[in-house]
Amino acid sequence: MLISCPDAPGIVAAVSKFLFDHGANIIQSDQYSMNPDGGMFFMRVEFDLPQLSSRLPEMEADFSAVAEQFQMEWYISDVSRRKKLAIFVSKEDHCLVELLWQWQAGDLDAEIGLVVSNHPDMKDYVESFGIPYHHIPVTPDTKKEAEKRQLEVIGEDIDVIILARYMQIISPTFIEHYRNRIINIHHSFLPAFVGGKPYAQAYDRGVKLIGATAHYVTEELDGGPIIEQDVGRVSHRDDVPELKRIGRTIERVVLARAVKWHVEDRILVHENKTVVFN
Amino acid sequence: MLISCPDAPGIVAAVSKFLFDHGANIIQSDQYSMNPDGGMFFMRVEFDLPQLSSRLPEMEADFSAVAEQFQMEWYISDVSRRKKLAIFVSKEDHCLVELLWQWQAGDLDAEIGLVVSNHPDMKDYVESFGIPYHHIPVTPDTKKEAEKRQLEVIGEDIDVIILARYMQIISPTFIEHYRNRIINIHHSFLPAFVGGKPYAQAYDRGVKLIGATAHYVTEELDGGPIIEQDVGRVSHRDDVPELKRIGRTIERVVLARAVKWHVEDRILVHENKTVVFN
Amino acid sequence: MLISCPDAPGIVAAVSKFLFDHGANIIQSDQYSMNPDGGMFFMRVEFDLPQLSSRLPEMEADFSAVAEQFQMEWYISDVSRRKKLAIFVSKEDHCLVELLWQWQAGDLDAEIGLVVSNHPDMKDYVESFGIPYHHIPVTPDTKKEAEKRQLEVIGEDIDVIILARYMQIISPTFIEHYRNRIINIHHSFLPAFVGGKPYAQAYDRGVKLIGATAHYVTEELDGGPIIEQDVGRVSHRDDVPELKRIGRTIERVVLARAVKWHVEDRILVHENKTVVFN
Amino acid sequence: MLISCPDAPGIVAAVSKFLFDHGANIIQSDQYSMNPDGGMFFMRVEFDLPQLSSRLPEMEADFSAVAEQFQMEWYISDVSRRKKLAIFVSKEDHCLVELLWQWQAGDLDAEIGLVVSNHPDMKDYVESFGIPYHHIPVTPDTKKEAEKRQLEVIGEDIDVIILARYMQIISPTFIEHYRNRIINIHHSFLPAFVGGKPYAQAYDRGVKLIGATAHYVTEELDGGPIIEQDVGRVSHRDDVPELKRIGRTIERVVLARAVKWHVEDRILVHENKTVVFN
Repeated sequence: MLISCPDAPGIVAAVSKFLFDHGANIIQSDQYSMNPDGGMFFMRVEFDLPQLSSRLPEMEADFSAVAEQFQMEWYISDVSRRKKLAIFVSKEDHCLVELLWQWQAGDLDAEIGLVVSNHPDMKDYVESFGIPYHHIPVTPDTKKEAEKRQLEVIGEDIDVIILARYMQIISPTFIEHYRNRIINIHHSFLPAFVGGKPYAQAYDRGVKLIGATAHYVTEELDGGPIIEQDVGRVSHRDDVPELKRIGRTIERVVLARAVKWHVEDRILVHENKTVVFN
Repeated sequence: MLISCPDAPGIVAAVSKFLFDHGANIIQSDQYSMNPDGGMFFMRVEFDLPQLSSRLPEMEADFSAVAEQFQMEWYISDVSRRKKLAIFVSKEDHCLVELLWQWQAGDLDAEIGLVVSNHPDMKDYVESFGIPYHHIPVTPDTKKEAEKRQLEVIGEDIDVIILARYMQIISPTFIEHYRNRIINIHHSFLPAFVGGKPYAQAYDRGVKLIGATAHYVTEELDGGPIIEQDVGRVSHRDDVPELKRIGRTIERVVLARAVKWHVEDRILVHENKTVVFN
Repeated sequence: MLISCPDAPGIVAAVSKFLFDHGANIIQSDQYSMNPDGGMFFMRVEFDLPQLSSRLPEMEADFSAVAEQFQMEWYISDVSRRKKLAIFVSKEDHCLVELLWQWQAGDLDAEIGLVVSNHPDMKDYVESFGIPYHHIPVTPDTKKEAEKRQLEVIGEDIDVIILARYMQIISPTFIEHYRNRIINIHHSFLPAFVGGKPYAQAYDRGVKLIGATAHYVTEELDGGPIIEQDVGRVSHRDDVPELKRIGRTIERVVLARAVKWHVEDRILVHENKTVVFN
Repeated sequence: MLISCPDAPGIVAAVSKFLFDHGANIIQSDQYSMNPDGGMFFMRVEFDLPQLSSRLPEMEADFSAVAEQFQMEWYISDVSRRKKLAIFVSKEDHCLVELLWQWQAGDLDAEIGLVVSNHPDMKDYVESFGIPYHHIPVTPDTKKEAEKRQLEVIGEDIDVIILARYMQIISPTFIEHYRNRIINIHHSFLPAFVGGKPYAQAYDRGVKLIGATAHYVTEELDGGPIIEQDVGRVSHRDDVPELKRIGRTIERVVLARAVKWHVEDRILVHENKTVVFN
């Protein structure tokens, strides 16, 4: 259960009493108050309740009184229903391969509904996992149609879209469909090196650490809420291909963490920032 | 407020309702359940309540009913009353200097009641901060008397003892007085390199990372509950003095973190492990 | 070119003059002297020389005079001849998958000659890369024969054996065949948690960081020269399966680095330690 | 000995032969070639030569023939002559305190000639180490005079100026006097968050790691050659004061490393980047 609301006394008490009265046992509960004298309050409660799926509608109805009292935005997610992913990829395959490997190893608790690419290269590999692969070429002229086609193949039941080094810019219309549900991996330590060729930019600036950033996609290029970042050490000896090589492992790890937290409902977005309960 | 008890349904609800009924606003609450189907439950609640100090006795009395129901071990700590530290040091001064600097910078929210050392070297430096310095020499023959003298100068109102590179072994009697309230910094990544000269041991083994460990002191040498650890990279070029130099910064940072968490009541000890709510 | 010898004045001058006289241009040169007043000297020189392979025999003959003068152990490796790997694996496949992926991405500049396993599970996957897969079951009774069979399938032209989570102990006879050429990944921060079930050991001890260690295999279990180590942060919330999950990524990265350095001839072994020129 | 020159065959041979002929024993030698088929070559040689200081003039005269042949920029630094530092500081004292502590502990092998500040606060503390403290106030109107006064008190024998959180912008004239000899610590992971209040900028952007950067000062604000960078993990819970607290330790460590490498002559600057032989 994820809740955002203006801070006020009694929220935790009301929520935990509600859950107790409905027979749920709280396994973990996290809160974050931006400021006790006002500001926003965020809460995540993980609870155990037998036959949740059948009892969920009733619970949701009952909870609306509590929610109204505190002006909550909220939802309850049933972990027995795994989230469904669409993965977008271009030529660079390392992030896709990592997600597939983690998924196969049981480390990524989600379903991979389909893979979409503007290149045909990974078709056989992806299909060998039993996952549909849609090759939808994108050119400046066909961009609009391509996005329409993408939305069609995605359909209605995809929870989150992962841009696993997908090198096309997504239109505002597309973003609007999946507000805070499109995760991109940018191959720099944002806000450094926004835009194209970040490793070349990093090389030119002579930085001593390179990084990667997973963020939700918004209309502003590489400007959306940051979910996770990490860095690796480099030296003057590392040219651009070597930076890319080192960076690939950072990108893989950072994206995989962000996806994991998203599918476990650990992330709340407020304005242009994330609250990550991990 | 820190709570440990056997896990059971309704704990969070009971505690948060209690706090709400007493007019407290929960700022942060953390829980950890070892296993939802049994096992221990740990909880830390940070709450805001005007005039807590005067209302504390009443609250504590009222809470005993809740506590009894769930067989809780618990206590409420008033953050307006800062914890009082005694720092023990031998010849190596870097950990002491770090704590004094963090304290002076306002980054360590505690009082430093006194410094105890088996060497006179740091007397002037410590006293320049207005902190009493007790030089109590320790020899194999005078060990028992020395500890007696140490307990005298510490008195009754010290909350926690920090062994900031204090190179004498503490007796079981002394430990018993301050169970889970003596923090030691060991200059290795425990359980590797228990005992003396860990940097020399690390050099001989040819490790590629060295570390430091802050832990509560128990009767087993370097065997107590680990609070925090960190490491730094080394190479074949680093001889023992260089390992010590690199290690000093790791030790300082690790000990300072552990002390901060202790004085902020973020640590619960269960069997030989810590639960750190940070 | 890799050189180990007792330290003496003039080694660098002699080697670099030799290379210059033979028309080689030094790209990179690293040295490490254990102690300028005695002790060992280690050197790695990367040089560029057209048609090295045809000129190598003559160079080696010419160099013996220099080598003799300084009592050098040395060899010249032609980077145009890529090293050949045999990978041993049991049930856990993440380290194997990582090496195959890095190899396919061109990040691991070596040939993978074959994969040997005591389980049949990965056969199809490995063969899909065009790499031979030898399933050689090992039981306590058949251990000796199994090793004999392993040596046969490896043949004569494998440079290095990678134990990518191969969970059988290698016999001294086998080790002797490949002295300092068998790399194992141990799933702990050695020398902590030697032997079996290191993640369970780490959980029991309550460490706050877990690690992995790549080392050359010697007769002493988990006691050989350490090539590389790294760690990741864990907390009281992480149970053994979660430690394993976090550890898998550390293991993959650490092993891949060690293998890369080995195939690039960046490692010298002296007594029970490594000199890594990276 | 530090050398920069266009790459060409025979440089290492020529230099090492020269040193051998003059009786020097090479302890460590590092090279970096930007590109073997052209581009720049950088070299650092650490050698042992009895009575270097008296023999230096003759060596330097002899070396000019070698230097001319390869168009070298070069110099030989006598490590028995410790480098002399001037430290500039404003109100925040943590970087100054760290350098003083490392210097006192013998970890910073240099002399601290004087401390200059636009505030009087640290006068007693600095003087307690026997180091002169010059309080030179700076206002927009008196900036030019203040810099003149600073240059006077610095005098002629200061090798490097450390801006240890000195919050005034240095004029191009001043920079010209100490080209590649003024080290600044910027409290962000450059090039992210150039300019004022980087921690507030980092908070607003919602980054998950904060950093610090030590760099040589050039006319472009926070744009000079980067020497060293490091980062620390933060979360949504960390407000600006907490980011500052975490950042202080990163800043201290990063600046201390950069200063150490500079005084050990491990850094070469080429265009707007550093080559660090560490």
